[in-house]
Amino acid sequence: MLSILDLRARIEAGTLTPSGAIDLCRAAIAAREPELRTLVTLDDNPTIPESGPLAGIAVGVKDIIDSAGLPTQMGSALYAGWRPRGDASVVARLKGLGAVALAKTTTTAFASSDPTETVNPHDPGHTPGGSSAGSAAAVGAGLLPLALGTQTAGSVIRPASYCGCAAVKPSFRLIPTVGVKTYSWALDTVGLFAAGVADVAHALALVTGRPEIERAEAGSAPRIGLVRQDFAEAPEPEAEAALARARQAAERSGAQVTDVTLPPELALAWERHRIIQNYEGRLALAWEYESHRDALPPRVREHLDAGAAIAAAEYDDARRHAHRARRVLKGLFAEYDAILTFSAPGPAPATLASTGDPRFNQLWTLMGVPCVNVPVPGERLPVGVQVIGRFGDDGRALAVARMIEDALRG
Amino acid sequence: MLSILDLRARIEAGTLTPSGAIDLCRAAIAAREPELRTLVTLDDNPTIPESGPLAGIAVGVKDIIDSAGLPTQMGSALYAGWRPRGDASVVARLKGLGAVALAKTTTTAFASSDPTETVNPHDPGHTPGGSSAGSAAAVGAGLLPLALGTQTAGSVIRPASYCGCAAVKPSFRLIPTVGVKTYSWALDTVGLFAAGVADVAHALALVTGRPEIERAEAGSAPRIGLVRQDFAEAPEPEAEAALARARQAAERSGAQVTDVTLPPELALAWERHRIIQNYEGRLALAWEYESHRDALPPRVREHLDAGAAIAAAEYDDARRHAHRARRVLKGLFAEYDAILTFSAPGPAPATLASTGDPRFNQLWTLMGVPCVNVPVPGERLPVGVQVIGRFGDDGRALAVARMIEDALRG
Repeated sequence: MLSILDLRARIEAGTLTPSGAIDLCRAAIAAREPELRTLVTLDDNPTIPESGPLAGIAVGVKDIIDSAGLPTQMGSALYAGWRPRGDASVVARLKGLGAVALAKTTTTAFASSDPTETVNPHDPGHTPGGSSAGSAAAVGAGLLPLALGTQTAGSVIRPASYCGCAAVKPSFRLIPTVGVKTYSWALDTVGLFAAGVADVAHALALVTGRPEIERAEAGSAPRIGLVRQDFAEAPEPEAEAALARARQAAERSGAQVTDVTLPPELALAWERHRIIQNYEGRLALAWEYESHRDALPPRVREHLDAGAAIAAAEYDDARRHAHRARRVLKGLFAEYDAILTFSAPGPAPATLASTGDPRFNQLWTLMGVPCVNVPVPGERLPVGVQVIGRFGDDGRALAVARMIEDALRG
Repeated sequence: MLSILDLRARIEAGTLTPSGAIDLCRAAIAAREPELRTLVTLDDNPTIPESGPLAGIAVGVKDIIDSAGLPTQMGSALYAGWRPRGDASVVARLKGLGAVALAKTTTTAFASSDPTETVNPHDPGHTPGGSSAGSAAAVGAGLLPLALGTQTAGSVIRPASYCGCAAVKPSFRLIPTVGVKTYSWALDTVGLFAAGVADVAHALALVTGRPEIERAEAGSAPRIGLVRQDFAEAPEPEAEAALARARQAAERSGAQVTDVTLPPELALAWERHRIIQNYEGRLALAWEYESHRDALPPRVREHLDAGAAIAAAEYDDARRHAHRARRVLKGLFAEYDAILTFSAPGPAPATLASTGDPRFNQLWTLMGVPCVNVPVPGERLPVGVQVIGRFGDDGRALAVARMIEDALRG
């Protein structure tokens, strides 16, 4: 994989130019993109800034995120060739830092769950996950050092786990979603994919203008709550093994790891994630659903049909459950510095007909708390674990994730 | 003014067709639009549904709200001729109800505070207010029975007060902002303008699919807290007089009106509204600001410059103040069914160089609570009063507002 920190160190040292760093991506894309199909469009002649803290860093932009220079097509024929006037907030910010929006990456239609053409870089018979399929696969395959995704249920953390890269789904709205096609305004969160946890922390600190995110430390004996999410169907053995290895790695580093059963309010919120997602999706995609329902692929259509059947009172009730659960979770974070849990039910499923299951992600998206995928090395197909922090304390979550990543490598 | 309920009653009775109702608007527009300049674009050949609960209702759509059939130009040359692919959520919903998106209405650039060309329908030397200038003036002048606006500080309630129509700024996110150009994601709220409070209640109930909004009742002796917002500079005598008349009208109807001084947490939040607005505006308009700063008109540029100087920590602190104030306000609503306060500092200022002052609106936008403008008849230039309800209880706020409106007329 291409590490942001490594590329930037070489550029700072004068052994690599920003253009040279972009050429590394072009070469990797030329070699593997025909097989992997991670990109929708590639900018053949981008402006490459010579300076800026992210000069030389090529970014893949999920194709539901507006970009002024390249079409934004939502993974849907309804938006074929569509060009927004300007960049999404996060894209403008990245360009302002010197990064190059080199490519648009594949997305399931409207970031729902109809598979893309992208394959898993570790085995082309396996899904890369979704909805941020192209971003996860392009970073996991070493085509790009940085990519943008979005998560409404598990669309950042799950594909990162499947594709073997690091990723952060930050605290809700830490990165603005302005210029991002909305599915659920209460859930949609912009996230970042990069080679390692230190890379995503560096990028997040720069994108948000919050250097403390990168400077945060895990402390000498962080208190980690190990959460199995028993309300969800049990995971596969590979996910269990990855979690056990991550726990041991954390303990080797001095962490106090305690098994925690989440209070019932959290299970009740977990059950209701889909109500909020589908109800809001039906409203957010009102034009697409009402004017072009037949042009929608089957899964997003099915989700929106489900959304149309949800009464406002049921949605309001789900929002109240989520609100209560956030308060309970806040209390839990008085006792723990981070939560450690599964990133996905197992390695990427051996199919291209599904993007996998977000059941270990959806609660945390609904809670709005920062989530980090830490790749666990060693298996043929990647499996990650998820480190979760208190709302607004993205730096701590990333620091604990870095500690575990270091211990797993060591 | 053209009343939604009146037009619909005539259509239901068979004495007016939907096309005939649209023709009434066209005739009014032909007569007064050259003087008032409320519209940016007018659809000369719209599809006019024959059925639906809002068939025959022409809607003015503020020109920061996406519409598939007409350009959406944000009040800015940067978006000259720009056409989104689809309708904003609220526009698709209105069309689905049978309404006709007949025109785009003027907006200050990016819904900030650089004046439009629109004049006040009651005196062309006075501002119609902003940022939803065209929507308020078109409804106040009787050109359209319904119009959409947005409020980030006071951009719905204030222009409604200046132009003499009813308006509702609903609870935060009750109407989705999907497809609306974002200025501040924590504040931007879609609102409705119509002739009377019963008209806006009817439209809001239909748009949200929540019939209980229209069915809510004020009760026989609602408890009303009269709030002067002493933390803001004092209002003009006309606003004082309107508030006094509204209080008397409420008391005649059986309401128990009590003077309330807001707890200090609310004044602290009020002071910090602008921090949130400008910080988020700078991020939301990142592309416009970073790539086209010189093309921005002076006031929005000044606000974004101010936003660029705000540290993340100051913004976070402002958000915490807002959070605390929301909790305090929730407690206050245990004692009162509604709050009655000023809609604006006075009648529309005698200038076209300013859109007026949102100082009596910004707190309530930040609190996310429903606000209704009730026109107070009798003066040469209109002045309104503002009825405010508990978060999520838009029906009650509208019912109390209707009660006061009825008593003022009676």
